[in-house]
Amino acid sequence: MTDLSSPLPIGPADIDAAARMLAPYAVRTPLLSSPALDERVGARVLLKPEILQRTGSFKFRGAFNKISSIPTSARAGGVVAFSSGNHAQGVAAAAKLLNMQATIVMPADAPLSKRERTKGYGAEVVLYDRDREDREAIARDIAVKRGATLVPPYDDPQVIAGQGTVGLEIADDMAKLGIAPDIVVAPASGGGLIAGIATAIKARFPQASLMSAEPEGFDDHARSLRAGKREPHRAEGRTICDALMASIPGELTFAINQRLLAGGLTASDEEVAAAVGFAFRELKLVVEPGGAVGLAALLAGHFEARGKTVVIVLSGGNVDADLYARLIA
Amino acid sequence: MTDLSSPLPIGPADIDAAARMLAPYAVRTPLLSSPALDERVGARVLLKPEILQRTGSFKFRGAFNKISSIPTSARAGGVVAFSSGNHAQGVAAAAKLLNMQATIVMPADAPLSKRERTKGYGAEVVLYDRDREDREAIARDIAVKRGATLVPPYDDPQVIAGQGTVGLEIADDMAKLGIAPDIVVAPASGGGLIAGIATAIKARFPQASLMSAEPEGFDDHARSLRAGKREPHRAEGRTICDALMASIPGELTFAINQRLLAGGLTASDEEVAAAVGFAFRELKLVVEPGGAVGLAALLAGHFEARGKTVVIVLSGGNVDADLYARLIA
Repeated sequence: MTDLSSPLPIGPADIDAAARMLAPYAVRTPLLSSPALDERVGARVLLKPEILQRTGSFKFRGAFNKISSIPTSARAGGVVAFSSGNHAQGVAAAAKLLNMQATIVMPADAPLSKRERTKGYGAEVVLYDRDREDREAIARDIAVKRGATLVPPYDDPQVIAGQGTVGLEIADDMAKLGIAPDIVVAPASGGGLIAGIATAIKARFPQASLMSAEPEGFDDHARSLRAGKREPHRAEGRTICDALMASIPGELTFAINQRLLAGGLTASDEEVAAAVGFAFRELKLVVEPGGAVGLAALLAGHFEARGKTVVIVLSGGNVDADLYARLIA
Repeated sequence: MTDLSSPLPIGPADIDAAARMLAPYAVRTPLLSSPALDERVGARVLLKPEILQRTGSFKFRGAFNKISSIPTSARAGGVVAFSSGNHAQGVAAAAKLLNMQATIVMPADAPLSKRERTKGYGAEVVLYDRDREDREAIARDIAVKRGATLVPPYDDPQVIAGQGTVGLEIADDMAKLGIAPDIVVAPASGGGLIAGIATAIKARFPQASLMSAEPEGFDDHARSLRAGKREPHRAEGRTICDALMASIPGELTFAINQRLLAGGLTASDEEVAAAVGFAFRELKLVVEPGGAVGLAALLAGHFEARGKTVVIVLSGGNVDADLYARLIA
C-alpha cells in the first residue's frame, strides 16, 4: 500500500495551486481515444497528448509554474536553463509571457528544430559540447554573472507541481467519464513529469499503477526503482529519444517516484520508431521519439494491458522533419 | 437573411438522429486550440480534427449513418461505393462494424495508403482509370449484379446528416464554452461535409458565416455559389488535394449550400503544402492536403479573420508517408 500521509517533496495541493496559475496560459489538453489502437492492444487506451501543449511539450507547465514563483525583485535578472530542447522551449515561452529574459544552455547536437524554436520564443541560446562540457556549470555561471534565476528541468518542487497538472487533468477527465485508470504510463528523463502525474493520480485513484517509460539502455528509473535507490543508467551511446537522456533520476523526483510508481518500462529505438510511425498512420498525431516511448512499450507488449484501462502520456512532438520522414517511411 | 423554415434536403432533426446512431461507434472529436495559431492569425481559432475520427476522416460518419439505414432484408447484398480514398475507408469500416460486405471502386492513382487501409477494413477494392472509365457506372454495375446497396459519397440525405454531426459537435462544444463562431470553414469536394455542418451550425448560430474551402482551380463550389447554380470547375490537371477533386457540387448538397453558405474559399497547392507543414511543426497534427485546405486559406489570409472566432475543420489525415515527407521538408 502506498502511504500518502508522510511528507513528499510536493502534494496534491501544490498541483492544484499550479493548475490555478497555469489556467490562463497553458493549453487544457484533451484525453483522446482511438478505436484502431484499442483494437490493436485489446485495451481501453486514453492518450494524453501533451504534443498539443504550448511549445509542443508538457515542459511549458513546469517552467511557467516555476518562473511565476520568482519574486518581482528578482525578475530583472531573467532566467537561465539547461535543456536538450523541450525544457528550453518551455522556459523560453514562459519567460516571454512573463516579460522576462531567458538564456538557454543547449547541447550542440540538439535537434535543429528545438534550437530554432527556442530562439523563436526570444531566448538567447548558448551551445555546449554534450560529451566534454558541464551544462549545469555553464548555466550556474550565467546565473551568477547576470543575476538570473536557474529554472531546473525537473528537480524542483514548483517544476514537478507544474508537470503534475497533466495528471490532474487526466484525473478530472476520467472522473467525468466515470472510469478509473488501471495503468498510467509517462516518459521519464529526470522524472519530473511522472512524479507530478503520480502525485495527482494516486490522490484520486489510489489503485492505479503508475509506470515510467524510458529508452532501452537509458533506463535509470527502471534500475533505480528495482534497486530502491538512485542509480545511473549504463548507456554510452545515443538514443533517438533525445529528450530522455538524463543519466540518473532527480533526488526530489525519485523520492516521489520510489513511493508512488509500480515500476519502470523500457522500449528499444526500433520499438519507439514503430510507435512514431503508428501515431502518424493511425492516430494522426506527430509525436517525437521521446514522447512516444510509453506508446512504444504498450504496442510492443512490454506490460499486460489486455482488458485494462490504460492512460498513455504523449509528452512531446518536437521532431525534425528529416528524422520524422525516416521514422514514418 | 437565411430562411430556415422552407424545406431543404435535410434539417437539424436528421442530424440529431444521425448523432444518436453514431454515438456508440464514432469518435467524439474535440475542439482544439493552439496559441501559436491564434498568434499567427490574430484570431481565436478552434480546430475540429476529424483526422482523429475512425478511419482518419469524417467520412465514417456519413457512411455509417447511411449503411445503418439499409433495411435488414437488403443487407445480405452488401454495399458498394466509389471513392478516391476517404469515403472508401469510411464505407469499408462502417460495413465491417455492421457485418456487411463492402466493394469499393477506387481510382488506380489513389494514394497507396488509402487503398491499403480500405482493404485493411475487409473491403474488396476494384480499381479504375480516372481519365478513361466512369466510376459511377462501374459501381452501379456491381450494385445490380450483387444486389448491393450503393453508398453515395455525398449526394444523399443520410450521408449529409451523418457528416452534419461534425457541425452538431462543434455547436455543442462552443455552447459549452459560451462562445459563438463568427466563421466556420470546411473543405468541399461534393459538398456533403459543409452542407451537413452548415445545417447544424446555422440552426444554433444563425449569425455564423459558413464557407467551403477548395483547391485553386478545383473551385466548383466557389463558382457555383457566385453563379447561384451548379457549375463545374475548369481544372484539367491534378491537385495535391486528392480528396477534393469532384467536378461539380452535388444536387442535394448544393441546394443546402446555396442557401446556407456565405461563400467559397480557395487555396493553392503551395498554400496547402505550407498548411500541412504548419500543422506538423506547430499543431503536431497529421493533416492530409485535402484536409488542410481550410487551414491553408486561413494562414494565407484569404478571408478576414483578425479578431474573430474561427472554426476550421481538418477533415482528414490519410496521407502517404513519402508525400508527407516532401510536404514537411
